[in-house]
Amino acid sequence: MPKKEKGKLRIIPLGGLNEIGKNLTVIEYEDEMIVVDCGLGFPDEDMLGIDLVIPDISYLEANSDKIKGIFLTHGHEDHIGAIPYILRLINPPIFGTKLTLGIIKNKLDEFELTVTPSLNCVSAGQSIKVGSFAVEFIHVNHSIADACCLAINTPLGTIIHSGDFKLDVTPIDGDMMNITRLGELGRKGVLLLMCESTNAERAGFTPSERKVGKSLEYIFATNPDKRIVIATFSSNVHRVQQIINVSAKHGRRVAVTGRSMLNIIGAAIELGYMTVPDGVIIDINEIKRFKPEEITLITTGSQGEPMSALYRMAFADHSQVTLGPSDLVVLSSSAIPGNEKLVGRIINELSKNGVNVLHDAVVEVHVSGHACQEELKLLQALTKPKYFMPIHGEYRHLAANRELALDMGIPDRNIFISDIGKVLEIDSKGAHFGGVVPSGKVLVDGYGVGDVGNIVLRDRRHLAQDGIIIVVASIDAEARLLLSGPEIVSRGFVYVREAEELMDEAREIAAESIEKSLSSRGSLDRMELKTKVKDDLSKFLYAKTKRRPMILPIIMNE
Amino acid sequence: MPKKEKGKLRIIPLGGLNEIGKNLTVIEYEDEMIVVDCGLGFPDEDMLGIDLVIPDISYLEANSDKIKGIFLTHGHEDHIGAIPYILRLINPPIFGTKLTLGIIKNKLDEFELTVTPSLNCVSAGQSIKVGSFAVEFIHVNHSIADACCLAINTPLGTIIHSGDFKLDVTPIDGDMMNITRLGELGRKGVLLLMCESTNAERAGFTPSERKVGKSLEYIFATNPDKRIVIATFSSNVHRVQQIINVSAKHGRRVAVTGRSMLNIIGAAIELGYMTVPDGVIIDINEIKRFKPEEITLITTGSQGEPMSALYRMAFADHSQVTLGPSDLVVLSSSAIPGNEKLVGRIINELSKNGVNVLHDAVVEVHVSGHACQEELKLLQALTKPKYFMPIHGEYRHLAANRELALDMGIPDRNIFISDIGKVLEIDSKGAHFGGVVPSGKVLVDGYGVGDVGNIVLRDRRHLAQDGIIIVVASIDAEARLLLSGPEIVSRGFVYVREAEELMDEAREIAAESIEKSLSSRGSLDRMELKTKVKDDLSKFLYAKTKRRPMILPIIMNE
Repeated sequence: MPKKEKGKLRIIPLGGLNEIGKNLTVIEYEDEMIVVDCGLGFPDEDMLGIDLVIPDISYLEANSDKIKGIFLTHGHEDHIGAIPYILRLINPPIFGTKLTLGIIKNKLDEFELTVTPSLNCVSAGQSIKVGSFAVEFIHVNHSIADACCLAINTPLGTIIHSGDFKLDVTPIDGDMMNITRLGELGRKGVLLLMCESTNAERAGFTPSERKVGKSLEYIFATNPDKRIVIATFSSNVHRVQQIINVSAKHGRRVAVTGRSMLNIIGAAIELGYMTVPDGVIIDINEIKRFKPEEITLITTGSQGEPMSALYRMAFADHSQVTLGPSDLVVLSSSAIPGNEKLVGRIINELSKNGVNVLHDAVVEVHVSGHACQEELKLLQALTKPKYFMPIHGEYRHLAANRELALDMGIPDRNIFISDIGKVLEIDSKGAHFGGVVPSGKVLVDGYGVGDVGNIVLRDRRHLAQDGIIIVVASIDAEARLLLSGPEIVSRGFVYVREAEELMDEAREIAAESIEKSLSSRGSLDRMELKTKVKDDLSKFLYAKTKRRPMILPIIMNE
Repeated sequence: MPKKEKGKLRIIPLGGLNEIGKNLTVIEYEDEMIVVDCGLGFPDEDMLGIDLVIPDISYLEANSDKIKGIFLTHGHEDHIGAIPYILRLINPPIFGTKLTLGIIKNKLDEFELTVTPSLNCVSAGQSIKVGSFAVEFIHVNHSIADACCLAINTPLGTIIHSGDFKLDVTPIDGDMMNITRLGELGRKGVLLLMCESTNAERAGFTPSERKVGKSLEYIFATNPDKRIVIATFSSNVHRVQQIINVSAKHGRRVAVTGRSMLNIIGAAIELGYMTVPDGVIIDINEIKRFKPEEITLITTGSQGEPMSALYRMAFADHSQVTLGPSDLVVLSSSAIPGNEKLVGRIINELSKNGVNVLHDAVVEVHVSGHACQEELKLLQALTKPKYFMPIHGEYRHLAANRELALDMGIPDRNIFISDIGKVLEIDSKGAHFGGVVPSGKVLVDGYGVGDVGNIVLRDRRHLAQDGIIIVVASIDAEARLLLSGPEIVSRGFVYVREAEELMDEAREIAAESIEKSLSSRGSLDRMELKTKVKDDLSKFLYAKTKRRPMILPIIMNE
């Protein structure tokens, strides 16, 4: 690890750059560190069998005594989802807004933790002093309530970390992003702006959440005779609020299905982030007491997730609801890249069952929670940072955000596209990259955290592609005799009952190969024998089938 | 199979409905059949290791003597790709336009066929009489040249099969879709319109191919100092023509890379579908003789395919070209659903290398080849069919196309959403569904056609998810003794060197399980013993890891 000098700020992303999700940034000054966000990511399609990805935090573990606090911008999984995992390794105080902490508490209930986390509630506008840092929470608009960006006061100047944000001049809760405060900070001077890049490729302004309300109003007004089922992200408290409002206005009761939806709506109501007129929300078991046109159903599953409530309703596998021609389904969401086919599967199945489906390609039933180019430029214009670092996104997004900064007049030398583990050092003389710290992806598979790595994944990919062939034989190595076998067992290679000839030939090849090794001169090398069997079989099978199954010789020595 | 009555038309899709690709329709009258298209499909993401999907044509095999001909609408893979495979089973005469047959000949060169196919060249406007049918080829616009729809004259009336089409009033070759002829047929009376549904969810008109030319002109004019690399679909002859035109106009030489691009451009030039000014096209090995700004490169890889020329150029693995800051890459395409992440990977890598990348989200460098809603309605308005069958698409697309037909005044009872294998019978009294014939997906994996089925795929998915654990032991079944083992070998489950304890415990569990079976009373059932080992190990491993690897006990009896 590079050695640190006095009076230096070090900015170290451990996640969220050159990738989507698992956002985590470390900010260091001398012997003190703070952490911004602690999120999880979803596996790439080639990470077979993996449930989640969390950041490698060995750098934080090695410096756990220096960490003054973890500051959370908002309650989305890609910003808080790794908290339960890192609490097994480090336990610094955690700071976040009320809803963010409410969601974390919900999550932590599902984990068996041996430590008691220190959760500290902060309101937007508050500033938390930890060591040499003072971290001010500033209200932003986003697709979850109670989201903030952070102004981090350091001995060298102010760092602004945008978190995830958009500017909504007509937000549902009436609380616009506090651009005034950001402008004030800009007037005083901002050392570094770390700005999210999700929509940096998109021109213009992201529409207001209220636009969705207008679409919903239209949908409800034109479908007075249908049950309306709306799928959306459970954490989008304001979206859910709008659905409840328009339902109440049209005299409908609202029932909720899907575990995460029930959890978050529960928390949001309890914490005061949602207002529900008396009697509007009913239990899903009560819906039979009403006519279909008197009901709105709010559900999870807008990404087509195969275990979600919407999926189960579509495929007639939901205990309380079956969907048919008297239903209108609204997907109030957009498919996250990679989920298009899953979402399509639900739309197809619903259409087959005569359900009318509305989605964002047809009506404007979804708006993004992230700033588009004009809002990104506005944030730069307000804060007038000396240095600029695009964060949160794949390289293409970071590069697009960098272009915006160039357009805004920030000199090229003051813009830093970083990477996870890469250290940006800032001191009074300037800013430059200085070394790297350990970083990476830790894969979560079932209870296992980090026990599946590249070798296991490579094997899974190999197995997935062409299956496996196991060759079992027992030999007497001393007498140089094949005692029994070889037996050939295959899985995922070919339907054996229809390929008996091929499998017989394969057994012969394996037998010949073993006999040849046994009868060769010199001492018997079992490793060599196995490699020979593998090579001979592999060559034979490729010539016959153009496939390369994994070949696993197991030679037992009696 | 349902029995046939005299004087009945039977319309039987064997592919292309409730799926994308592998288009194939059978049209029968009495003892005669014709086939429209014979395409392949791409595997779903859960068809691990599968290369291609072709239609199950056992119905055609069983009726091979009745098939009067295969009529091809155009040369895209999803309409002709299964030809090399079905020629191994049946060999009826094949009819198609010049370019379509040219592409087929190219393809057939890669296959070792024992039969000589009968390829018959047809021009748009021609009508082919086979048995009771007369099949007229009618010119349409599409993203490949020489595409046609078919007017199939039958004893019961005219069937129009749209193929894939759009209406381009300013096509590159100056040859607009022959809507006049379609209007004439409509005036005479059309019995059934089978109409493609790809863009049935999209409002409006699909823009003209010429729109892309305008964007290219702008890109070339504003980037005079860069080498321009354009990736597009190799079969889009008119797109390639436009790239050549704009390059020539700006004094650039054009080099081509990617096997399929070289093949198709070669065929298109040879057959007269492309005009290239002398000296404009150069060999890729010659590009070094020119300055970067004097070169246009046309390449495959617009879908992010990992073996494509563009991919190799992006990842510095192409023998002639490395891309950097002096290059501009244009993705003149849109990502086919499911390919978004692959395309994104290339964009990221190129951005990292300082390459400027333009794609269809940024500039209009791609237009669809399929009719949008207004064009679909236009085709209905021209042909005024009695019956309507939406084809080519998932259920959502078919359902959207059905809505358009309802809007156009076709009565609900005359609209038939069919499915593969489903028979629509039409006689003088009316039309109705009548029975089914065998149909389905035949999976191609390497040289294997149909030898990978549900069981093999299920095993591959299982292996991919959590890997495999093999338990090998040899026993003396008579003496009830465990002779050696059990040995435990795993792949794709856990990194064994870091999980020795777990694997030791697993071996103990397996040993106990075997010993217990051996020492139990009654005769030894090897199947039961294996099941017991599997169950015991599975339970243990799930409790420890929350994973369910495939467990494969191999018990050898000495």
